[in-house]
Amino acid sequence: MLALLPPVLREIQLPLRLRLWNGYELELGPIPSVTLVVKDPGLITQFEQPTLDALGEAFVEGRLEMEGSISEVIRLCDALSRALIPDENAAPPERRAHDKDTDAAAISYHYDLSNDFYALWLDRDMVYSCAYFETGQEDLEQAQQAKLRHLCRKLRLKPGDYLLDVGCGWGGLARFAAREFGARVFGITLSREQLALARERVKAEGLDDRIELELLDYRDLPQDGRFDKVVSVGMFEHVGHANLALYCERLYGAVRPGGLVMNHGITAKHTDGRQVGRGAGEFIDRYVFPHGELPHLATMTARISEAGLEVVDVEGLRLHYARTLNFWSANLESRLEEASRLVPEQALRIWRLYLAGCAYGFEQGWINLHQILAVKPYGDGSHDLPWSRRDLYA
Amino acid sequence: MLALLPPVLREIQLPLRLRLWNGYELELGPIPSVTLVVKDPGLITQFEQPTLDALGEAFVEGRLEMEGSISEVIRLCDALSRALIPDENAAPPERRAHDKDTDAAAISYHYDLSNDFYALWLDRDMVYSCAYFETGQEDLEQAQQAKLRHLCRKLRLKPGDYLLDVGCGWGGLARFAAREFGARVFGITLSREQLALARERVKAEGLDDRIELELLDYRDLPQDGRFDKVVSVGMFEHVGHANLALYCERLYGAVRPGGLVMNHGITAKHTDGRQVGRGAGEFIDRYVFPHGELPHLATMTARISEAGLEVVDVEGLRLHYARTLNFWSANLESRLEEASRLVPEQALRIWRLYLAGCAYGFEQGWINLHQILAVKPYGDGSHDLPWSRRDLYA
Repeated sequence: MLALLPPVLREIQLPLRLRLWNGYELELGPIPSVTLVVKDPGLITQFEQPTLDALGEAFVEGRLEMEGSISEVIRLCDALSRALIPDENAAPPERRAHDKDTDAAAISYHYDLSNDFYALWLDRDMVYSCAYFETGQEDLEQAQQAKLRHLCRKLRLKPGDYLLDVGCGWGGLARFAAREFGARVFGITLSREQLALARERVKAEGLDDRIELELLDYRDLPQDGRFDKVVSVGMFEHVGHANLALYCERLYGAVRPGGLVMNHGITAKHTDGRQVGRGAGEFIDRYVFPHGELPHLATMTARISEAGLEVVDVEGLRLHYARTLNFWSANLESRLEEASRLVPEQALRIWRLYLAGCAYGFEQGWINLHQILAVKPYGDGSHDLPWSRRDLYA
Repeated sequence: MLALLPPVLREIQLPLRLRLWNGYELELGPIPSVTLVVKDPGLITQFEQPTLDALGEAFVEGRLEMEGSISEVIRLCDALSRALIPDENAAPPERRAHDKDTDAAAISYHYDLSNDFYALWLDRDMVYSCAYFETGQEDLEQAQQAKLRHLCRKLRLKPGDYLLDVGCGWGGLARFAAREFGARVFGITLSREQLALARERVKAEGLDDRIELELLDYRDLPQDGRFDKVVSVGMFEHVGHANLALYCERLYGAVRPGGLVMNHGITAKHTDGRQVGRGAGEFIDRYVFPHGELPHLATMTARISEAGLEVVDVEGLRLHYARTLNFWSANLESRLEEASRLVPEQALRIWRLYLAGCAYGFEQGWINLHQILAVKPYGDGSHDLPWSRRDLYA
């Protein structure tokens, strides 16, 4: 039966074991650390040119199983892919039109999955975005609190500031800004599940006099400059290239002159839209974030500037997101039993691969994370930012 | 004689006095703070559509004189221009081909003017780029030392590091990095005058065992990754859009994996190359920085990324450059007598306008200043940067 496997596999040295549906095994190296179980004979030809997309799809469909650490499986599948597909086919991804309906459906697909499921592996405040490890020694809870504080400090939030939170998730940032910095917050999301739990938590904390959360599309934001500050975390990845200009215009219209706008999100490796990661992006697009489109930092910088905002501070946090995702993945891997009671089996397979896979993607530099702070200057060109960023580290 | 002046001038309210060649005066507002002296009757028609370029040219040629603060003159000329040219003609500037010869000639035009002239109004170390005002209370000397320290800190310079300084000017940064951080430095410039004085100062300080300075084009930089860090201050503005990719490739090739690259320079307001400032850019191009081309931050970010470097930290210092230029302009204005013995009258007129005018341009946001730090990651995607930027403010 092993003769069915592509002969080229025998030339590869990797600590990886393949086990076929009938029990036959091929070890690609002397001491395999993980095992891929090929349950479907039709999968064998995939091993001639194994993209991460195809392998991931097979796992989601149950045609492929794995034994051992999921992080190690991903690392070795990438190594296998590199060995067998020397020239990566790095075509730009398909870009589809975004409108309010497609955006609402895409957001609902991901974020309405199950609050209890997300609560299983996120931190207590359910902050579902890159954490901030000030020294690298922090645990996830500490690093998410530090991230919220870092964002509020970058926004120079002060008591009474009216903060717009675009894509507020489960309200962790809104509650932090209100509680720790005395801000009033208007938060929006397109996820009904997030909104319900976020409102619950705001009320439980007695912050409902200072925080208002609504189901609202960014296109419908008030455009009268009523907000002192705007924060958008993990949001611009969902907007789509064609709408990024409109998105930035809406943020510009929402904030007052002299106000600050923070965009925190995942950015692409290449400026021309080419993807790297041997199909990992296609997997994410199909199963995890439909309609997601990652702009390059240069693209975001251009759209932000063209809207009339001035970029004053950018910080790259790529390895922070790798670490965050490794925490999330480890949390989920340690609670698979509970997780399997909260979401369908296929969803669990998707989320397991996605968390471990994105950790690997950030480590490799396939994707990046940038916090981009911009100011809307007053008419005379001035603004109120301090001369240095020292206050962020006081 | 006043009837010769465009009638529209009488509808404008500005604290500006026009005095004609024959002594006749027109006051545009009740208490004029400055006076423009029109010495050439041919200039009168220019006041129908007064661009800053045309007014500046007339001043350079001695057909227009000014009485009062040069900063106030520029502010009021801009106000006059805004009042009379409602729609700014913001065409992209002409972009000419750059090669080694044109670049060498352009650099020589500006930087070989006269070391003694520059020494008259720069700080002691002759740091000819945006200073860094940590609190806004510093004088120029303090702020330039703080800038050098800020750059070295961002580069995480440590003893023994081999630093490439691209566009080293009079060597202020090279000496600081060697003296204060124990770095070895290789600096390059295309200005013979700068090189001669820079070498003199290196020797006088006994740093010639650690600093080597050469007349070299960036295209001829060693490409064997021999440098631990690269710093480029006030340099990419001279490269030209067509060559920015090549320029970034050369920096990439010069630095080792894991190394850091800092680009500090002036950036454009608009992403599409449109200029603002009612002709001020044309003036700069013709008289001050021939072949200068300002890229937008997004353009620099794109070219840096495309070369294989990863942008990790961007800091906007627009108002720092306004303040720096105001110091330089005030220094020069207070030493006009000495300056006039060092450079031709026309050059002095150009530099006076350019320093005060650029201070105004930075204040208005017509131009910006960004420090862009990038890393060349190791093959596995990792790098040695600390988790946070806190060390910059220790």
